Amino acid sequence: MHSDFELVATDQHSKARRGRLKTAHGVIDTPAFMPVGTQGSVKGASPRELRELNAQIILGNTYHLFVRPGLAVIKHFDGLRNFMSWDKPILTDSGGYQIFSLAKLRKISEKGVEFQNHIDGARAFISPEIAMEIQAALGSDIAMVLDECVPYPCDYDYAAQSTELTTRWARRCKRWRGENAERSTPSPQRQTEQATLSHLSTINSQLLFGIVQGGAFENLRRQSAQAIVELDFDGYAIGGVSVGEPEEEMMRAVESAEPFLPADKPRYAMGLGTPPQMLQMVARGMDMFDCVLPTRLARNGTAFTVAGTLNLKNSEFALDKRPIEENCACPACQEFTRGYIRHLVKAGEILGLRLITLHNLHFYLNLMHQARTQIECGTFDRFREEFVAGYKTRTPATVE
Amino acid sequence: MHSDFELVATDQHSKARRGRLKTAHGVIDTPAFMPVGTQGSVKGASPRELRELNAQIILGNTYHLFVRPGLAVIKHFDGLRNFMSWDKPILTDSGGYQIFSLAKLRKISEKGVEFQNHIDGARAFISPEIAMEIQAALGSDIAMVLDECVPYPCDYDYAAQSTELTTRWARRCKRWRGENAERSTPSPQRQTEQATLSHLSTINSQLLFGIVQGGAFENLRRQSAQAIVELDFDGYAIGGVSVGEPEEEMMRAVESAEPFLPADKPRYAMGLGTPPQMLQMVARGMDMFDCVLPTRLARNGTAFTVAGTLNLKNSEFALDKRPIEENCACPACQEFTRGYIRHLVKAGEILGLRLITLHNLHFYLNLMHQARTQIECGTFDRFREEFVAGYKTRTPATVE
Repeated sequence: MHSDFELVATDQHSKARRGRLKTAHGVIDTPAFMPVGTQGSVKGASPRELRELNAQIILGNTYHLFVRPGLAVIKHFDGLRNFMSWDKPILTDSGGYQIFSLAKLRKISEKGVEFQNHIDGARAFISPEIAMEIQAALGSDIAMVLDECVPYPCDYDYAAQSTELTTRWARRCKRWRGENAERSTPSPQRQTEQATLSHLSTINSQLLFGIVQGGAFENLRRQSAQAIVELDFDGYAIGGVSVGEPEEEMMRAVESAEPFLPADKPRYAMGLGTPPQMLQMVARGMDMFDCVLPTRLARNGTAFTVAGTLNLKNSEFALDKRPIEENCACPACQEFTRGYIRHLVKAGEILGLRLITLHNLHFYLNLMHQARTQIECGTFDRFREEFVAGYKTRTPATVE
Repeated sequence: MHSDFELVATDQHSKARRGRLKTAHGVIDTPAFMPVGTQGSVKGASPRELRELNAQIILGNTYHLFVRPGLAVIKHFDGLRNFMSWDKPILTDSGGYQIFSLAKLRKISEKGVEFQNHIDGARAFISPEIAMEIQAALGSDIAMVLDECVPYPCDYDYAAQSTELTTRWARRCKRWRGENAERSTPSPQRQTEQATLSHLSTINSQLLFGIVQGGAFENLRRQSAQAIVELDFDGYAIGGVSVGEPEEEMMRAVESAEPFLPADKPRYAMGLGTPPQMLQMVARGMDMFDCVLPTRLARNGTAFTVAGTLNLKNSEFALDKRPIEENCACPACQEFTRGYIRHLVKAGEILGLRLITLHNLHFYLNLMHQARTQIECGTFDRFREEFVAGYKTRTPATVE
């Protein structure tokens, strides 16, 4: 497989990389943050606002969309981008993570996962092949293989077996894609078959990322990385991180896998993280991130700043005429005071969480923008050190 | 008192008027709809979105703002416009309506109203003079006198006594304003006094509207109108309508008072109404309206169209690729389908109610825009008839 990933610059003092990933619907400058659009909407933000924040790609959660509104609806609207009126790239996950964290009565086998969804309890089954089909129907620019994300903590034997299963599933995803992309060259005898499988053009332009698992075990992480890379994907994700483990273990999991990932493919650290964690991951050679913290904490009245998080519900902000963060270019800071936003949050007004959401997304997107500039200028490592030192981690260390 | 109200055109077939009201922070084209910004925010919309919808004035609820964040906070931020970053006119009510509908343990006397607020139960007292002071501190462009809004139904004797009280209170509001505006001409011996009373400039530029009461009784409505007009305000409101009475009684209450209101002052029908009701009121000589229906129904998934309301939660819209309303110029209809908005509402995504809110506010504002154009063209009465005939009232007839 061929991925249109170009390395523009690499840092001399760390493994940080400045890259560009070409997808069917636009270029993604890396390191990149991807706002999470769980149910076909980045919570609290509109597509227009995301465009104005210069988001180049957003994430869609396959599990959530599969459960509601369901695949038939999204197919009817010609895919997720068209459904939600987002004209830039989308990455979809495989659905596996939410099946393991949200669904009920999961039953995992070699074949796939049977589960009852958390909304109406309806039974469903997802296999590696079905995960590929669903993501083809969603029409994302980047699809992820189906994997099993082991919990933390997890014993060695289970982690080892699970990692091997994830590799076998990855192989099946790859094979399905190869077989179905092949069919896109029309031949008369295959027309009926083709008609039953829409979205062939999506399959051909959709990038497919493999996922490295291995829990908290260095040798499993290494083995997983080697096995997945051997299958040759368009990019590689590190999964099973930010699942409750201490930060050092998270760093070690990435450090264990990274040396075995090819330099010329993008690397995606899944579900990360706090602002300092993202910069630490960039320094460890990671290129892409997604995290619900900016939108989730906003709904709780919490804003990100270079000095750490602010809980705008606090009474200390009632008379505060400053913006959330001085010199911030986001739409909330350009126009509104902490005092007003505090009032909105306390009064339960939607505008309050909207403004903090815009600020937080800007903060995350801008942090990656700064990282890119600093890598280009050769000053990334110092930037990272100063940022991490200045940032008081009042944020929860892991995503709930 | 002098009000900068200019009549641009009047309808030949009804009492409809096309006017322009000049206020300290902008001109209001009438007939006008005023979105309701209860707690310093029009629910679901940002100031920027309101500007883009061409809202020329919004309403602020004195009672809500008095209770939370409280007057000290709004004074600290130099008034409501500055606090909420809204650069156009604001009309504030007196707080009376919410004291009578929301607060606990109300005790009304000649002096004013004592009550416990509905949030933390704190005791407070508002008199006509205090209502004027509060609205001066809020810095609105149009202030309302304190009145008693009698419930529906209400017996004649209570309504008669209450209407007289409202007149006496109106006189006290007028007197307070006269006395305090007077002080704005600086004189050395008054400097200390002035220092204790900020917002003198607001008082001098703030318009003050009287309120006609009288319940469902024609003679009381007439008497109230005559008494209030004699006090000479910048504009006149009809209060105590849309409080649960049948629509015919609402119309009759307005018809009873209207002939006694001077033609050269704006008339404001408070708390109205459904789209057909607004046009019926325009035909009866009313110029200004405020109503929570567009924002409140939006939060329930209900959208306004020329054919009546749509509940977008209904399954019939799941695959609907049309906008909420064909040929609608609002931001929601320009970009999103009914099917997508339905999904958002069902999934509890904030963007759903935001999009319906924008559509509904556009619908109300645009209806008044159309009314103005039709009055200018001499075709208003036919427009009104066709609109009312085409509109199926699936909407609740009164505001809850």
